[in-house]
Amino acid sequence: MKNDKFQLAIVGLGGMGNWHRELIERIDCLEVCGSYDIREERQEFARQHGITPYASFEELLADPKVDIVLCATPNDVHKEVVTRSLRAGKNVVCEKPVTLGSKDLQEMIDASKETGKLFVVHQNRRWDEDYLTIKKIYEEHLLGNVYRIESRVHGSRGIPGDWRGEKEHGGGMVLDWGVHILDQICMMIPEKIKTVYATLTHVTNEIVDDGFTTVLTFESGLEVLLEVGTNNFINLPRWYMLGQDGTAVIEDWELHGKIVRAKNWDEKDVVPVKTAAGLTKTMAPRREDTIVTEDLPIVHSDIRDYYRNVCACIQGKEEIKVKLPEVMRVMRLMEAIFESAEKGQIVSFE
Amino acid sequence: MKNDKFQLAIVGLGGMGNWHRELIERIDCLEVCGSYDIREERQEFARQHGITPYASFEELLADPKVDIVLCATPNDVHKEVVTRSLRAGKNVVCEKPVTLGSKDLQEMIDASKETGKLFVVHQNRRWDEDYLTIKKIYEEHLLGNVYRIESRVHGSRGIPGDWRGEKEHGGGMVLDWGVHILDQICMMIPEKIKTVYATLTHVTNEIVDDGFTTVLTFESGLEVLLEVGTNNFINLPRWYMLGQDGTAVIEDWELHGKIVRAKNWDEKDVVPVKTAAGLTKTMAPRREDTIVTEDLPIVHSDIRDYYRNVCACIQGKEEIKVKLPEVMRVMRLMEAIFESAEKGQIVSFE
Repeated sequence: MKNDKFQLAIVGLGGMGNWHRELIERIDCLEVCGSYDIREERQEFARQHGITPYASFEELLADPKVDIVLCATPNDVHKEVVTRSLRAGKNVVCEKPVTLGSKDLQEMIDASKETGKLFVVHQNRRWDEDYLTIKKIYEEHLLGNVYRIESRVHGSRGIPGDWRGEKEHGGGMVLDWGVHILDQICMMIPEKIKTVYATLTHVTNEIVDDGFTTVLTFESGLEVLLEVGTNNFINLPRWYMLGQDGTAVIEDWELHGKIVRAKNWDEKDVVPVKTAAGLTKTMAPRREDTIVTEDLPIVHSDIRDYYRNVCACIQGKEEIKVKLPEVMRVMRLMEAIFESAEKGQIVSFE
Repeated sequence: MKNDKFQLAIVGLGGMGNWHRELIERIDCLEVCGSYDIREERQEFARQHGITPYASFEELLADPKVDIVLCATPNDVHKEVVTRSLRAGKNVVCEKPVTLGSKDLQEMIDASKETGKLFVVHQNRRWDEDYLTIKKIYEEHLLGNVYRIESRVHGSRGIPGDWRGEKEHGGGMVLDWGVHILDQICMMIPEKIKTVYATLTHVTNEIVDDGFTTVLTFESGLEVLLEVGTNNFINLPRWYMLGQDGTAVIEDWELHGKIVRAKNWDEKDVVPVKTAAGLTKTMAPRREDTIVTEDLPIVHSDIRDYYRNVCACIQGKEEIKVKLPEVMRVMRLMEAIFESAEKGQIVSFE
């Protein structure tokens, strides 16, 4: 603590490390006291931004003023950075995916238990407003009983050209984006997941998956389709949710979308739709007076609450929001996705 | 033949029977000579439209002027109508789904072989313009190598209230709409189907499926998602196709849609997208100068070609377009869908 602020040192000052640096400038309980990166240009970047870089990771760990270590290195280095930081008596915030498998994660959790220090993963997309909005629709039963949810993240740039394209560093889209959208669904649906079906894509990248589609079947029969694509030049909606009484769509991160619900189930005078080669009553659109179209009940959020909770937790004032058993469950889900895709089988989960 | 026109008798003058009646009025080689329906009000409907109804199915079969019987009854009656008509020396056009299972279909095919008469199924949606347009995009490689296709038909009226909601009559959406979108994909992709994964919905109907989602994996690795929903108040696009070089979407039967292709794979200056709780370069949209947006290469069709082909085939001038082995393959696919959904397993196919 210094000036009533917890002192945080960043390990790995790349794109995400710098994102944290900028965020922390806007948080009262916290301040960046230093950084370390194996790349000299990022050490120089730190200096240019008023941060004194440590000469080595060891020097950073040896500095008694460091309360919190933020691990924002490539994924394969997380385990070492986290366990060494915990054993040096530091609290640790770790970027996602926490590590490459559940066995490694268990070692990290064990180190946290041993040392009594906080170890928390940066599942920041629990604060994304599209997610909080669809979660509100689900929790407030605005569509009646929900039986299908689809969560998609589509881009068309392929896999990033850095370590995220390399298997040994924990690259690939299941680990990079899957970890977010799986975590969101797990936090939204308070049910056991019975089965996992998944396929991976290798469109622009042979080495790691550059996208995936997975279907999770929950205890109640609810089906959730989760998809990440990096070669999609036209995006399907970010969220699509089907309930007994209506449908919700959130198109994008700008929260375009709507809810359409049935008003009158008993209408009779269907005007069949003619297509070039047939006609259909079943698929004819509903008359406007039999449905209600509503705006999304948008939920706003403040991502600074993530770090505020970290500070309050270290002070013993709050329980941590992103809990390790939750992180472990998502890690096991990712393993089930890889297993299903590899075997070409539906995998039992819980 | 009468006035150089083949004489066609309609068995089952409901919604689809009448659709055929209206269509045949616009076809030179064919004319409706009579009809039979077990419901007196539909016999009366025939009279009102200048058709003399037969007093019984037997009377219809005994009439030597009938060249072709159109079977447009509920699905469970198809087998009897078709086999008896063939054995009475008639050519037969049968509504889809041809029957309820591959064993019954084989009996119908055997009757056709025995009698040497034409037996053809009305897979009319091979002439739908949305389908012909996406097929052109696929066949002309406008997106490069295609690795995923999604074909959806969404409505929000539930299952029709007639026999289509009853299992014993062959109700349910796999048989009703699945048969169309499966047939389309089978005709489009000249590859073996290796596996079938499917789940059914029972949102508004406990007795028969009121929708389904299936994923077919083809020999080349191509994945096809097919979906029918009857409780979808917001529709996802009718077609969505992903190729290595671009994406195509056809939103609806009015053929709204577009193709977006990559122009420049090497662009570097990504502007990351910020969301409430994070940022992403991978999912940032492309700059306009790195992509090309094009109109759909719309294909027009004439559904009358279906019956023109039937007439030409009976005259020995053309091969039939809708072939029985194709119909059998789709029937077996529907059985694989039911099997996969029931067992909760991926089913091997070809």
